[in-house]
Amino acid sequence: MSGILTALTSDHRRAVRIAESAQAAAGVITLARFHEWFAERRKGDVSRVERVPLDALDRWGTDPATGDIRHDSGRFFTVTGLAAEVAGAAVPAWTQPILLQPEIGILGILAKEIDGVLHFLMQAKNEPGNPGGVEISPTVQATRSNYTRVHQGAPVPYLDFFRDTRRHHVVADVLQSEQGAWFFQKRNRNIIVETTDEVEPLEGFVWLTLGQLHALLAGDTVVNMDARTVLSCLPFSGVGLSSSYPSPSPSRALGDEEFRQSVLRSCSEEFAGLHDIGDILSWITGTRSGHEVGARRVPLREAELWHRDEEAIRHESGLFFRVIGVEVESGHREVARWSQPLVEPIGVGVNAFVVKRVDGVLHALVHAGVQPGYLDVLELGPTVRCTPGNYAWLPEAARPPFLDEVLAAPPERIRFSSVLSEEGGRFYGARNRYLIVEADADHAPDPGPDYRWLTLHQLVGLLRHSHYVNVEARSLVACLHSLAGRPA
Amino acid sequence: MSGILTALTSDHRRAVRIAESAQAAAGVITLARFHEWFAERRKGDVSRVERVPLDALDRWGTDPATGDIRHDSGRFFTVTGLAAEVAGAAVPAWTQPILLQPEIGILGILAKEIDGVLHFLMQAKNEPGNPGGVEISPTVQATRSNYTRVHQGAPVPYLDFFRDTRRHHVVADVLQSEQGAWFFQKRNRNIIVETTDEVEPLEGFVWLTLGQLHALLAGDTVVNMDARTVLSCLPFSGVGLSSSYPSPSPSRALGDEEFRQSVLRSCSEEFAGLHDIGDILSWITGTRSGHEVGARRVPLREAELWHRDEEAIRHESGLFFRVIGVEVESGHREVARWSQPLVEPIGVGVNAFVVKRVDGVLHALVHAGVQPGYLDVLELGPTVRCTPGNYAWLPEAARPPFLDEVLAAPPERIRFSSVLSEEGGRFYGARNRYLIVEADADHAPDPGPDYRWLTLHQLVGLLRHSHYVNVEARSLVACLHSLAGRPA
Repeated sequence: MSGILTALTSDHRRAVRIAESAQAAAGVITLARFHEWFAERRKGDVSRVERVPLDALDRWGTDPATGDIRHDSGRFFTVTGLAAEVAGAAVPAWTQPILLQPEIGILGILAKEIDGVLHFLMQAKNEPGNPGGVEISPTVQATRSNYTRVHQGAPVPYLDFFRDTRRHHVVADVLQSEQGAWFFQKRNRNIIVETTDEVEPLEGFVWLTLGQLHALLAGDTVVNMDARTVLSCLPFSGVGLSSSYPSPSPSRALGDEEFRQSVLRSCSEEFAGLHDIGDILSWITGTRSGHEVGARRVPLREAELWHRDEEAIRHESGLFFRVIGVEVESGHREVARWSQPLVEPIGVGVNAFVVKRVDGVLHALVHAGVQPGYLDVLELGPTVRCTPGNYAWLPEAARPPFLDEVLAAPPERIRFSSVLSEEGGRFYGARNRYLIVEADADHAPDPGPDYRWLTLHQLVGLLRHSHYVNVEARSLVACLHSLAGRPA
Repeated sequence: MSGILTALTSDHRRAVRIAESAQAAAGVITLARFHEWFAERRKGDVSRVERVPLDALDRWGTDPATGDIRHDSGRFFTVTGLAAEVAGAAVPAWTQPILLQPEIGILGILAKEIDGVLHFLMQAKNEPGNPGGVEISPTVQATRSNYTRVHQGAPVPYLDFFRDTRRHHVVADVLQSEQGAWFFQKRNRNIIVETTDEVEPLEGFVWLTLGQLHALLAGDTVVNMDARTVLSCLPFSGVGLSSSYPSPSPSRALGDEEFRQSVLRSCSEEFAGLHDIGDILSWITGTRSGHEVGARRVPLREAELWHRDEEAIRHESGLFFRVIGVEVESGHREVARWSQPLVEPIGVGVNAFVVKRVDGVLHALVHAGVQPGYLDVLELGPTVRCTPGNYAWLPEAARPPFLDEVLAAPPERIRFSSVLSEEGGRFYGARNRYLIVEADADHAPDPGPDYRWLTLHQLVGLLRHSHYVNVEARSLVACLHSLAGRPA
């Protein structure tokens, strides 16, 4: 028995330490000092990003047979075509350009206890597609091409903590998918490693508590997508925060503190959800089995309705996204000057969780959504994930359920709202409004067979494994966690 | 708290009922009566299976452009080509024929408590490729083409229990892969549903206890692959069997009862394994990230070194497998007469777990094995999975570790040995020797980075999810479970 008791104790101790870090508004630096430092980084680390014609990209060529755009090293990524078939969907078959990047990159956050509080080593990093320049990024954010140094840049700092974890404690380590609408079967290794080594933050790096990171999530385009997805994989149980729950009181249903308590209960395995995890897994299995999805690579030139001119590849409607070229000059990157293609989405998207309280426990409404770029048919996503502008072109039946409700939510029901960017190394100016909207528990919508109400604890359990929770939902999980630590 | 307590109690109650069923040597019928019935079925349900040239298959045609062999309905499966690349492997690139069957089929076992003991409804089913004719199969074993009745056969009995599970209790429900060497990304839904409805066994069906199924696993080619893989997904914890463990006694290290106790401890979460589950998940993630595997479909005619004559497609070495054609006539199938291609492996394979006891807890040595047909790079397989005859042709470096040790194991170290068949609907006469060989704990081999020692409890936990445990290891998990219930 001693083995299991040790394991439970060590899991419990880690949960308490994570919760304590979530409560810490100040760490080795205060949030005010962070903002000064961050403003300096934003001012000092400016890239010149210039649009250039796709034909003018240095070291990137177009295959004359296929029209695919690839780097002359064969690495990084390729812009190719995808033919998708989703039986029964409003648009049952289409072709589109898609990014192909079969390498598995590393998104790693280094953790360390400093002065008794768990800190996370974050990097102020610029990417050419970032809307606001520098954003807060994981300790390491590297493609395999990066860290095997295909482009002969500088070595990736702190990489060894994630390449050889034996001397450290692995807090989370899982392959997670990225945008299934733009990437073909792309995954990254999301990893959090705790060390007891002495670690000096290099220039551009900073130690932050989880409470500070949670506060920063509320700001527009501060915490980047890679940091958000790694943070979502943290085994956050709120255990140390939840030692004395007041019992749920319906009369204060909209009170902030009461809401916070419902988030904490949602994080805890002590509170059952509407569905047990066996039923949720069975629902996912059944939904996957019921969908006939075909996705195969085709030559980019076979993407119908998509046209390439000198400047970009675009859909004939002008909607969805463009594939553009940029030339980048940077003083702070591994390579000071390069050019590359980027995907530029048209319009700002909406990624929203509708949440409700059931017996004082917050539940998020997840959608089992098929995307042709997923390796395993579908993943659980936000209640709403879309770019509203695209629906001008699409059939009425394609309009996402709950979109109108989310957009029309009164301010007191909006528990979280900020505009966050997507990966600036592949996407140009890609932004989504991330919303958490609380439904009236007595008037919550009937979600239908492709939706389920899950607790945060259940989502965090699924996040230990691949193929369950998509990148947009992972961002929202990080945002939901941020609501557990805020005092009323 | 009441929610979680209820859940624990219901999980515990189910675990006890499964364990009780594993102990029940007799159920609604005795094992002796079963064998009479089974012999009758084998005698009465005989298919005439005749080899015919590939060109002579009714409704199956060869695409003149690609050489692929497909059914004229477009359903069932296609024999196509695969180009595989596995960086760093002894054979780093090859092409081969492969079966493509993108549909997700159902392998379902119906469970029901009868006279206080959990029973499982099994079918005596013949498949054209079965070496011994009728074998014990799941209640439902149906491709999507079967159950959507593409071939206009009879409806699949008991299907509704698995198509609409709402009125029943889902015991397990997960998509699991099949042979990655012969199938491209094939998965089936492995599902166990418990009902309280009255269920009459139709002709060819029988209610068996888990103890009876475990006893049948010891016989050659009695329990088919589909039944084994579903049984492996049962949440078997041995909890009711393990109420009074004697403490491990090294002096009786080879005693049968002591071994059985080590299996029971291995099934129980109360006993820690050598590695905790977080470390195991991190090892899987790291191993997946480190492998560069490419697998893409190519036209069958591009499979180099494979040649088609009138009769079959074969490798120029004469090894590996052949693609053959058969004509089947059966009185007991949904369609009485049909023809189809089958994959005929050359030689009998070996699938073996090396196991050892650590502090009285049995551990199995799993191998994280890359196969091009897997959806997610690699899955955990047996310690040894191979067909020894194939190594005549392959480089010396390709010879599997532990193969020679397993083949040379003295009888007292062989804890399980039987010859079991693979899916007779796709494979012709495919048999493997399934072995469980105990290593001396003090002289257990150093397994290297692609191997880990796992407890049965850990394997069963991974089996709740897709992409972790391959089909050969799942059979061995079912065989290991069968060793928990045998009295000394």
